Amino acid sequence: MKTEVAIITITKVIEGPTMTAATPDEVDCQQRQLVCIDDSGYIERVINESDDDFSAVKRDAEQNDRLLTLKSNEYLLPGFIDLHVHAPQWPNAGVALDRPLNEWLDTYTFPMEAKYKDVGFAKRVYDDLVGELLANGTTTVLYFGSVDNPANLELAKACVNHNQRGFIGKVAMDNPDQTPENYRDASAQSAVDDTERFIQQIDRLNQTSPIKQTAVITPRFVPSCTPESLKGLGELAKKYDLPVQSHCSESDWENGYALEHYHKRDAEVLDEYGLLTDKSVMAHGTLLTQADLDTFKARGVAVAHCPISNVYFGNAVLPVSKLLQQQVKIGLGTDISGGYSPSIYQNIRQAVMSSRMLNDGVNSELAPAQRGTNYPPISAKNGFYLATVGGAKSLHLKTGQIKARYLADLQVVKSPLKSFEDESLDQIFEKIMYHASKADVKQVFVQGRLAKTSNN
Amino acid sequence: MKTEVAIITITKVIEGPTMTAATPDEVDCQQRQLVCIDDSGYIERVINESDDDFSAVKRDAEQNDRLLTLKSNEYLLPGFIDLHVHAPQWPNAGVALDRPLNEWLDTYTFPMEAKYKDVGFAKRVYDDLVGELLANGTTTVLYFGSVDNPANLELAKACVNHNQRGFIGKVAMDNPDQTPENYRDASAQSAVDDTERFIQQIDRLNQTSPIKQTAVITPRFVPSCTPESLKGLGELAKKYDLPVQSHCSESDWENGYALEHYHKRDAEVLDEYGLLTDKSVMAHGTLLTQADLDTFKARGVAVAHCPISNVYFGNAVLPVSKLLQQQVKIGLGTDISGGYSPSIYQNIRQAVMSSRMLNDGVNSELAPAQRGTNYPPISAKNGFYLATVGGAKSLHLKTGQIKARYLADLQVVKSPLKSFEDESLDQIFEKIMYHASKADVKQVFVQGRLAKTSNN
Ligand SMILES: [Zn+2]
Ligand SMILES: [Zn+2]
Repeated sequence: MKTEVAIITITKVIEGPTMTAATPDEVDCQQRQLVCIDDSGYIERVINESDDDFSAVKRDAEQNDRLLTLKSNEYLLPGFIDLHVHAPQWPNAGVALDRPLNEWLDTYTFPMEAKYKDVGFAKRVYDDLVGELLANGTTTVLYFGSVDNPANLELAKACVNHNQRGFIGKVAMDNPDQTPENYRDASAQSAVDDTERFIQQIDRLNQTSPIKQTAVITPRFVPSCTPESLKGLGELAKKYDLPVQSHCSESDWENGYALEHYHKRDAEVLDEYGLLTDKSVMAHGTLLTQADLDTFKARGVAVAHCPISNVYFGNAVLPVSKLLQQQVKIGLGTDISGGYSPSIYQNIRQAVMSSRMLNDGVNSELAPAQRGTNYPPISAKNGFYLATVGGAKSLHLKTGQIKARYLADLQVVKSPLKSFEDESLDQIFEKIMYHASKADVKQVFVQGRLAKTSNN
Repeated sequence: MKTEVAIITITKVIEGPTMTAATPDEVDCQQRQLVCIDDSGYIERVINESDDDFSAVKRDAEQNDRLLTLKSNEYLLPGFIDLHVHAPQWPNAGVALDRPLNEWLDTYTFPMEAKYKDVGFAKRVYDDLVGELLANGTTTVLYFGSVDNPANLELAKACVNHNQRGFIGKVAMDNPDQTPENYRDASAQSAVDDTERFIQQIDRLNQTSPIKQTAVITPRFVPSCTPESLKGLGELAKKYDLPVQSHCSESDWENGYALEHYHKRDAEVLDEYGLLTDKSVMAHGTLLTQADLDTFKARGVAVAHCPISNVYFGNAVLPVSKLLQQQVKIGLGTDISGGYSPSIYQNIRQAVMSSRMLNDGVNSELAPAQRGTNYPPISAKNGFYLATVGGAKSLHLKTGQIKARYLADLQVVKSPLKSFEDESLDQIFEKIMYHASKADVKQVFVQGRLAKTSNN
């Protein structure tokens, strides 16, 4: 009997309503499904109430104590993917956001990151940060670490301990003109060597960890690196076929730096050194030109859209609908601590709001026709797509959807508001997107493993 | 003995760190104070640790079981004042925000408000809404009710039951061209008569309620009223010396309506009918001209700034720093459900973010000098001032500050994030502004009465 054979390898069946992105514009909401998770942490099957064996599979799971039935106001969603977090900046989240970028970097950010030479400090912060991101429903994170590998290894261990899928970069920043004396790589060579050493450390860690961590080639951004380190890092990315992350076209200042020192746009500099690949994720891109976007499309580079951070440091709004329309890869990032919030829900909301402001314009002194732009605003559904499917595509992961053969990276979310009359699943979806906070995320699973319970 | 005499009238002493706005730009944070609340619900004294009788007052309060000492990560802040809530729209919070204004009104908003002819429905929704706003730290609310008085009276009763200070308006909307047949006042006369009747109902309710409710003259906005109802409502406002609330210069469409039908701006129409007074609070004002602002300043009219709602329906960003600089009265509103969030914290954040976007501009295709405006961005401190002092001045209330002879409208807030090293009170203040959610608001007092406990 086919059904019974299948059940033998199943470790857990979750029964309840599900919400998963079907396309950038559509969410597939189902009132009642069984999501069967196998013992390698993949979704083996998704069974509809109308399917023949729904009752049999449910009964079997129940008898084997493998059934989790959601409460009546709970919904099963894919876990979120956060494409841009500066882990060491977590203690500064929400601090000094009214300072100009250079003061923010020199007075708050670099001194904070330098503290991670103290491994005990790193351990305390990273344990809290990884737990906090999971508590907010984020199952996969692309992290910038700091310059120092012992701290970066602590971050990887915190991910393993908490059951989070981490993509972690040792930050390379060796340009003495643009980095503080007490916080930089000693040379281009040591930046590259330490990056290679970190790749090997992650390899070793993975030999015993159930959820694999990935090392990421991480030049901080063009200004903080020398041409030599950029070159060496590009070669490493190729040698190990690893993801690359950096910042690209974030601000007028950053673009200006590349133009002045390389007589090129920063996207062109990164491209020249082999840092724009099919596995590259570039943060922000608020000022990318059409030519830059064409390069991103051609190379398969993804943009980590960080809408909250962009309000503070991005100098403009990324036209998300344009990137979606041109099929440039794009997902969401919190950019802790340029963005204050660890919540992807908050970033979905701000992505929607910023896109509306880009469309409507902001300055009431201009006539409506002059005030706005032609970029259509995005919807909460678009935002949800970015936070799940968009992130998964950017990292080449089979996750972000509730579908057979996808990773069982899931969150159980309580409807945040009371219902006073019958509501459609579509309305409940919107309310979750607009209102859910950490307190509403009841359980989180990464690769089938419990990573948060309601008691967290 | 002076001290002991004072203590006799004191019902409660709260000991802990306090944060209260001193000026629009400055917050007064104190590490340890005793806030003494008298039995009429006013702050009688605020005692500093350095004051002679700090220990004596504390000991006495302790012995009389009147001392509440905050936990080590808790802070005492003034309660928030929300200057713009459409109470009947609460079930729609977060729904259909991507629809155009006319569809949003006709398909979602008016049909929802019409349901409040059912008093049982009103009772269920208003009980939940008032509890939710209090749970978010909001102690005073300026509410739009619906057309129907029995429901409006339920809203007032919910405020009394939950210990919230409500300012509540029976909505007047009698223009058959701009309102649906099943949801409007039958005539200008009945709109005015029902408003007057509601004033009397609130008077009667107040005879037995410890926290007084206030009736508010509430023409929905210029398009939904006839000149006759506007005239009658202006006369009522004068006769009873009551607050007035409406919407003003919210959208290009709204301004256009007044120009077309009255050949005047909507602020001028309201002014002509005596609806712009020292007790008027006008929602939004995103498109107010300098001449409109001059009128507001001259009449003492306040603006309810609703930054989240404005993103969806305001067509531009209100230049808050300009209003502060010109000393036009201004506070914050959630505008449920044009704004999705019941949290003033979220609206403080959005006010800051929208002001940054107004300053920086949004369109990356423009050069930086053309992209932005000259209006300086506001800070989290400015936002906190608006949410407390700004709201209090708009409603002529002695509240919004932790100060002797002010109403004891207070919230106990837990620091939302873990601290990894010593942080200044200023940093903790910023973290509270950027991170606090309902779950962090542990206790709320209105006029000295407990309105939320951590178990809510
Ligand atoms: Zn970044
Ligand atoms: Zn409104």
